[in-house]
Amino acid sequence: MEYGLAGLTRRTKRTLDGLFMGTQNTTAPSMDSIVALCRRRGFIFQSSEIYGGINGFFDYGPLGVEMRRNIKDAWWKDFVQRRDDVVGLDSSIIHHPKTWEASGHLDNFTDPLVDCKVSKQRFRADQLFFAPVVVDGKTVGYVSAMESEDTEGDLRKAAETFKRRNAIQGELEPVVAREFTAASPEEIPLVPSPATGEPGGLTAPRSFNMMFESHAGALRDDSSIVYLRPETAQGIFINFKNVVDSGRIKIPFGIAQIGKAFRNEINPRNFIFRSREFEQMEIEYFISPDDDWAKRHREWIDTGMKWLESIGIPGSLLSEYSHPKAKLSHYSKGTVDIMYKFPFGVQELWGFAARGDFDLKQHQRFSGKSMEIFDEASKKKFVPHVIEPSVGVDRIFLAVLCAAYDEDEVEGEKRTLLRFNPRVAPIKVAVFPLVKNKPELVRIAEDLYRKLQRKYSVFFDTSGAVGRRYRRMDEVGTPYCVTIDFDSLEDGSFTVRERDTMQQRRIREDGLFRLLDENIY
Amino acid sequence: MEYGLAGLTRRTKRTLDGLFMGTQNTTAPSMDSIVALCRRRGFIFQSSEIYGGINGFFDYGPLGVEMRRNIKDAWWKDFVQRRDDVVGLDSSIIHHPKTWEASGHLDNFTDPLVDCKVSKQRFRADQLFFAPVVVDGKTVGYVSAMESEDTEGDLRKAAETFKRRNAIQGELEPVVAREFTAASPEEIPLVPSPATGEPGGLTAPRSFNMMFESHAGALRDDSSIVYLRPETAQGIFINFKNVVDSGRIKIPFGIAQIGKAFRNEINPRNFIFRSREFEQMEIEYFISPDDDWAKRHREWIDTGMKWLESIGIPGSLLSEYSHPKAKLSHYSKGTVDIMYKFPFGVQELWGFAARGDFDLKQHQRFSGKSMEIFDEASKKKFVPHVIEPSVGVDRIFLAVLCAAYDEDEVEGEKRTLLRFNPRVAPIKVAVFPLVKNKPELVRIAEDLYRKLQRKYSVFFDTSGAVGRRYRRMDEVGTPYCVTIDFDSLEDGSFTVRERDTMQQRRIREDGLFRLLDENIY
Repeated sequence: MEYGLAGLTRRTKRTLDGLFMGTQNTTAPSMDSIVALCRRRGFIFQSSEIYGGINGFFDYGPLGVEMRRNIKDAWWKDFVQRRDDVVGLDSSIIHHPKTWEASGHLDNFTDPLVDCKVSKQRFRADQLFFAPVVVDGKTVGYVSAMESEDTEGDLRKAAETFKRRNAIQGELEPVVAREFTAASPEEIPLVPSPATGEPGGLTAPRSFNMMFESHAGALRDDSSIVYLRPETAQGIFINFKNVVDSGRIKIPFGIAQIGKAFRNEINPRNFIFRSREFEQMEIEYFISPDDDWAKRHREWIDTGMKWLESIGIPGSLLSEYSHPKAKLSHYSKGTVDIMYKFPFGVQELWGFAARGDFDLKQHQRFSGKSMEIFDEASKKKFVPHVIEPSVGVDRIFLAVLCAAYDEDEVEGEKRTLLRFNPRVAPIKVAVFPLVKNKPELVRIAEDLYRKLQRKYSVFFDTSGAVGRRYRRMDEVGTPYCVTIDFDSLEDGSFTVRERDTMQQRRIREDGLFRLLDENIY
Repeated sequence: MEYGLAGLTRRTKRTLDGLFMGTQNTTAPSMDSIVALCRRRGFIFQSSEIYGGINGFFDYGPLGVEMRRNIKDAWWKDFVQRRDDVVGLDSSIIHHPKTWEASGHLDNFTDPLVDCKVSKQRFRADQLFFAPVVVDGKTVGYVSAMESEDTEGDLRKAAETFKRRNAIQGELEPVVAREFTAASPEEIPLVPSPATGEPGGLTAPRSFNMMFESHAGALRDDSSIVYLRPETAQGIFINFKNVVDSGRIKIPFGIAQIGKAFRNEINPRNFIFRSREFEQMEIEYFISPDDDWAKRHREWIDTGMKWLESIGIPGSLLSEYSHPKAKLSHYSKGTVDIMYKFPFGVQELWGFAARGDFDLKQHQRFSGKSMEIFDEASKKKFVPHVIEPSVGVDRIFLAVLCAAYDEDEVEGEKRTLLRFNPRVAPIKVAVFPLVKNKPELVRIAEDLYRKLQRKYSVFFDTSGAVGRRYRRMDEVGTPYCVTIDFDSLEDGSFTVRERDTMQQRRIREDGLFRLLDENIY
């Protein structure tokens, strides 16, 4: 039994990071300004900040939680509620541990770890790079560096410093970065530890399982070990027969799930992109073994692309990456990732794996329960094959945020805005009485606010000049601002101002509700 | 520092179970029929069933997940979106462990455990009862029993058996049940183990912390211990200042959170009522220390009651339980629970605790960060006090299910139905073409289905007699069924049939959408 996919995905992705490293758009927003805005306006906080934080965990503030809800709701509506062939599921985070034996996670969901015996620090061996320092064709020593945006550059600088410090004469040859996982037993003691800069302290890489472990029940021994799920997918597979037996389902069909998953990443990074606690939105789409899997696979990728655009991620920032055949596990028919151009590089956003019948067959073998279904149409009995679209809520959140972040200039002042699609914007509409000391304006504004609030997340603001109120809403991505002014008293119309164009027009209540209903669905 | 509340709540509730035990309505649905329906129709499955299950964990199937979403959405809309004084939050499940030191969970979130040294079984000492067997005024031995619906009766029977087996002559005095936690060191070796029936095997009770423990990061030692949160409340307290600083908030205001929590219950029971993984919906409502806390507290209890009725839980099955002053922890001003009459007894549904400034002050002390806010209105600086309405999604789910379950007779046949309020019903409306072999009927039905599907969870069914299709929908609680018949071809109207009354009337598309919009909000 080979686990394969998850491991391969991780490995391949790292190499890919390297490939695309440096190609990012230099006009892209900096992560620093995005992280700062998230904190300032209550989108995302570091978890447990008052206690110095905890690495790899994040908390979503008042605006962040609304946007998360919107992303998850849009996904659920489009992939479950509005489809005839997908049903939902919500399985527990802690399963019977046998699940992870069958899935292969217990044996193979590992990262290669290397210890520095001197500093007691630990590193991911596949993020640690080294190179021989070669002068006039002769290896005179080794340098190392942790993976960065310019790993080769770091190694080159380290090699130059090494040569200078040791007063070595001759011509330094170009450094060739190698992953520490590929170091030979003879090389390991020669590679300097990134912690101390001195060779001799690093151990050979060893496997480290990334599942969080705990104990359920009163006993604390091997018999009570449980794991926090590292993915939501297996909860779907183990419920496959339950779902089939409790509904009238015919192939092809999918089971969808949104839920938390946990991976004990040694090196969580890039804000919420790779964290230890995250949320997945996964579908297992079951097809007949006789079906054209490649066509189904392609349909799902296209659907995914279109959906990302529907929530405001421009197609120009999306690309596809097809995993090379040679790197796939034996049972895999193909994996394609939709990639997004993050400020820190092009990275995986949404994976689409054609996994054959591997998972169901594994659970059939380990549980002794049949995973076959009878297909009325073909009158055949079989274990279905599966296409698995798998995406992280937090990654989509970050992509939406990065795609929406913008700065422009209005009347000589810098304007920071989030060009959120109305579907995902945390606040859909803001209501302003033009001035706060005219009770008749405030009353109309409040009436409208109450009506809107029944359906939407709305913000009511009476303080400061209208221009300032617009800016505050621009910065959190509110698509529409409605101002009640003196004309409203006359004809019942309001001014609606659109965030991106800053254009204003008069609208009546029914027109406003129609506008919202068309754009928020 | 004393933890108090959670511990007390558990203890008090157990006693209360006893008080109300046996008073339940005998016409109430049996848990067996509810559990069977849940499995059969895909509401709830035992987690990891194919591997023999895992105690205290549950998976929600296609209909269950929709209903959970509806409950959570209704709560969020009513308590966050539609209120001006509450904002949302979504904090991580794993916090910095210091959180649980400050909150008191590390020291005091414990159950008393007792081991049977012979059988190696473990019991909750507060669920284990014992009594001396007294004959003619003389103690001749001891009997024990696990808590049940009739613990005293079980003990009496055990005492009678004991007397008979040992051929003891004389009059058996009435047994007086005592909790094992109250056994004296001299009594402990005399109480028989519930596992073996023999005395001498039981240990003295010891504290068992109910938090699930894990390790974050590559090291596995004391420095890396983390806990799965046993409640969502602390995530709110540790983010208090972040939320205050990132929004324009004035006291009184609340922070609401929905999310998973974990408690390593020794004895999970009553289906989803007490499980090890569950979901909470909690609000911390912050008020000025000068505010009338009792009035605020009462407002929240009343709001909770009304809300429960709005989602279909009849007020006649709800009651209030006020925790006795003497049982509250030193900082608590009062706790009232809304109780629901479950088939297994009257049990806590929603707790409303007035916790003073205990939690914020604890985090202030442990973090060294000020939790004071400046109140513009009173021009005062203070650490706010808090009212905490705290409810479990799963408990509400179960209460809704129990309240809705009904059986009646229609045309001589038994009808099982779930009288769900439309707000929480997993399927809102079913669409049936009267017959499936009339393309023009099917086309109209499909058109309507698609339109409805944009907004609601809808079921389309063409198979079998309409009567049978109604029954299938009754059993899963679909409030409305719409049939497209030959009259529809003429005048564009449909038959809408109401689940509870089974009354039918003609309706047009706009009328149908209005009906749904009024009842599903």
